Amino acid sequence: MAPERPATARITQRICGAIKSQIASGRFGPGARLPSTRALAAEWGVSRTTVTAAYEQLIAEGYLEARQGARTQVARGLGLAPAPPAQAGLPASPDRLSAYGQRLTAFNLPSASDAGRMVADFRYGDLAAADFPMLAWRKAVGAALLRRQGRFRYGDPRGSAELRTALQSYLWRARGLRCDLDQIIVVNGSQQGLDLCARLLLDPGDRVVMEDPGYALARQVFLAAGAEVVPVTVDRDGMRTESLPAAQLAYATPSHQFPLGGVLSAGRRRELLAWAQSSRAYVIEDDYDSEYRFDIAPIPPLQALDNAGRVIYLGTVSKTLSPTLRLGYLVVPPVLSEDFAKAKRLTDRHSASLEQEALAELIESGAYERHVRRVRRRNSERRAALLTALSITLGEAVTVVGADAGLHVVVWLNRVPRTQERGLIAWADAVGLGVYPITPLYASAAAAVRPDAAGLVMGYASLDERTIDQGVRTLRKVLDAFAAEDGAGRVLLCPRSR
Amino acid sequence: MAPERPATARITQRICGAIKSQIASGRFGPGARLPSTRALAAEWGVSRTTVTAAYEQLIAEGYLEARQGARTQVARGLGLAPAPPAQAGLPASPDRLSAYGQRLTAFNLPSASDAGRMVADFRYGDLAAADFPMLAWRKAVGAALLRRQGRFRYGDPRGSAELRTALQSYLWRARGLRCDLDQIIVVNGSQQGLDLCARLLLDPGDRVVMEDPGYALARQVFLAAGAEVVPVTVDRDGMRTESLPAAQLAYATPSHQFPLGGVLSAGRRRELLAWAQSSRAYVIEDDYDSEYRFDIAPIPPLQALDNAGRVIYLGTVSKTLSPTLRLGYLVVPPVLSEDFAKAKRLTDRHSASLEQEALAELIESGAYERHVRRVRRRNSERRAALLTALSITLGEAVTVVGADAGLHVVVWLNRVPRTQERGLIAWADAVGLGVYPITPLYASAAAAVRPDAAGLVMGYASLDERTIDQGVRTLRKVLDAFAAEDGAGRVLLCPRSR
Repeated sequence: MAPERPATARITQRICGAIKSQIASGRFGPGARLPSTRALAAEWGVSRTTVTAAYEQLIAEGYLEARQGARTQVARGLGLAPAPPAQAGLPASPDRLSAYGQRLTAFNLPSASDAGRMVADFRYGDLAAADFPMLAWRKAVGAALLRRQGRFRYGDPRGSAELRTALQSYLWRARGLRCDLDQIIVVNGSQQGLDLCARLLLDPGDRVVMEDPGYALARQVFLAAGAEVVPVTVDRDGMRTESLPAAQLAYATPSHQFPLGGVLSAGRRRELLAWAQSSRAYVIEDDYDSEYRFDIAPIPPLQALDNAGRVIYLGTVSKTLSPTLRLGYLVVPPVLSEDFAKAKRLTDRHSASLEQEALAELIESGAYERHVRRVRRRNSERRAALLTALSITLGEAVTVVGADAGLHVVVWLNRVPRTQERGLIAWADAVGLGVYPITPLYASAAAAVRPDAAGLVMGYASLDERTIDQGVRTLRKVLDAFAAEDGAGRVLLCPRSR
Repeated sequence: MAPERPATARITQRICGAIKSQIASGRFGPGARLPSTRALAAEWGVSRTTVTAAYEQLIAEGYLEARQGARTQVARGLGLAPAPPAQAGLPASPDRLSAYGQRLTAFNLPSASDAGRMVADFRYGDLAAADFPMLAWRKAVGAALLRRQGRFRYGDPRGSAELRTALQSYLWRARGLRCDLDQIIVVNGSQQGLDLCARLLLDPGDRVVMEDPGYALARQVFLAAGAEVVPVTVDRDGMRTESLPAAQLAYATPSHQFPLGGVLSAGRRRELLAWAQSSRAYVIEDDYDSEYRFDIAPIPPLQALDNAGRVIYLGTVSKTLSPTLRLGYLVVPPVLSEDFAKAKRLTDRHSASLEQEALAELIESGAYERHVRRVRRRNSERRAALLTALSITLGEAVTVVGADAGLHVVVWLNRVPRTQERGLIAWADAVGLGVYPITPLYASAAAAVRPDAAGLVMGYASLDERTIDQGVRTLRKVLDAFAAEDGAGRVLLCPRSR
């Protein structure tokens, strides 16, 4: 109906409804002639225009047919096809799912957690909303809006020229990374970067070499592509590259191994690149949190050492601005640039333009790097608070690793066997403490650096110092009670502490 | 380097560089002991702290090793791997591309056009920036920003609860579509919706039934998935459903066939649903521009007739707000909801949160529907201007179809053979007129409704009335010159008109 004339529109609608019911009930069969508009107008006490509008609507919907000079009639093709069955007949599972879809069934959707009810939630990946440079971002969005004129049209699948230009010089300043504009592909966060790599580079049955433990959603992307993920153990110098198996792709976090925190040594970097070249494989370098090195300068990326076009560099603003912005970037070898652009276009045309332009503005104005320095200091304070609390409150009960950089630490619980990791975490959750296990980051329990001990990945970037301290004290209570008892007694010993 | 102390940092950097060069030149081999920090500090005329910082940086990068009580030495694993070859050895084509990636090579990236230099650009999909509800959008973004507190964390892969709630009632009000919240999946524009359908529902070798002519990027998505696209001819009542072949998926635009403009009749809707059920196939209903019906009320969606859970409804705000926002939504059968949520999460976690919340705010406040009514009127004026100009300026030379709805018309050029379509368009481009051919929307030239005549898809939503009129006059000049001459003479007859 035309929203400008609600009263007439409502009547037209009701006439349409009445005619449809009569067709559905069989009162008017296919080919049956309808009353004249004059007759129906009289019956409903409305103008002929209103009835004509109803007929035109039903003609447009295919219920009626108009023929030159003859009365409007019910469409002749109507009602011949069998009616669909009732709602009760809905299938309980999909009739059809691709091989890709079937592989997804192995993965769980995370349950939504309610950070509000918690004493402290050490979920890795969360950031404090207070850290977001709200003023600078609003200013950047405003500037981007002002620059818009003329027309909105689909943009370059690689991303806006402004953002790629800004990223090009940012990457050189901050990371010593040199590239051409066309090598940069703006993506919706690093997750889409990983997914595009998997789509373009992996066929079912291919092999991917990956750090173990490693980033779970990267592993899932490769498995969903039908690839075999070959785990490679990790030590303090990152992934052990001395005897990498044949594979089509490698995934690594050379600047800051996730989650254990090692830096891939220079020798291993060379070994990894030599392996990639001799295997004709590509290496995804996930540089997810390089902005957060507290005691030492940033490590130059693997990409900067790569003279053979084998490294795909992956960056994100999820750790510096917000994980909810969904902005990241790939730097791909020149030879892959067009393939990535085509895949990005078919996947979702391009990333949202306004966000891209706002980020470009933020980088160009210098506000981004000022912000990064500010949140680096802020997170360094949070880190200090966490390390102090862990040391004072838990002492020898824990071993902390990976604290040099990033926004998380790994905490080995020296007195809790690995087999009890899940129980401990469930219990912590029951008393309002959000802590997260390391085990799901391992491809196989056998590969664990500490097969004996339970481990936690503790993110601190969303918490203030007081909450961090409260959280660690709560962890102490949970550990004490856990050690003292097992089974049903625990809940009594560890009441809900606020 | 710590950005807070640039002078010291620069010196540290230079020391690091010098040591790296000496390692690279062979002056320091693996295991070689470095000078003491005292000696090096004296040599450089800096403090020992500065030298220590350089050593620590190089240890972190893996060039050096520190051992308790002993002097720092060059890392023993260093330099054993062969150095990567020079840049000159870069491959000219990718060594490795998945079957998906290889299929993409058949598709072209569109070349960037420069609307600024044009007399008129009738590119379909573009919107006028002036139509964007800038004030309401800024207000909605502001309100969404204010609601943010506590922490930023990854959101629900299906989309924010606020937006899905707003869409749920909008779809019921505007389209008579009823669904549960979990059936709604917010995506980055309809392109991502199509891509997720292809990933979850198609294996290589599967068949997809699709309107011919039809939406080219949908066809590309299905072909990229390795499916066979089976074209089905289209008439004034939309896709001809009377003898659909066996297939796993169908793609249709029932409310407004793209590009020819037919409305799928009620009988064909039933036939299509019955086919889907007997084939155990799903139907993608792309409702890309249902907001723009000018003379008659919106057609209820196919989804509303579907009692068997076979229809996947696809909507977008690309035609009402902006194609650059990248926001759309799927309404999937309940049984597919979890699979789509998992695929969306692996693809890019979720769509950008702030945009989602702003759109929710816009819908909830009523501003979205007010805006839709306003742009519907505005585009109705543009349409009238285009139809008038085509009629007055081109008369019998053209036949216009599909003008009842949407933001484009198809213009058949009655006196230009189909074989000259491409030449005509190139010539139009040369004089600053952007017109776009219908031929690429056909799977096969044989299926064409008008195999004889060239056809144009003319979008008008980004143009004002004066530009539309100028554009049509320019088209007249091009057609006249094209008819009068062929070959080299044309350019002289059709000078660049501004």
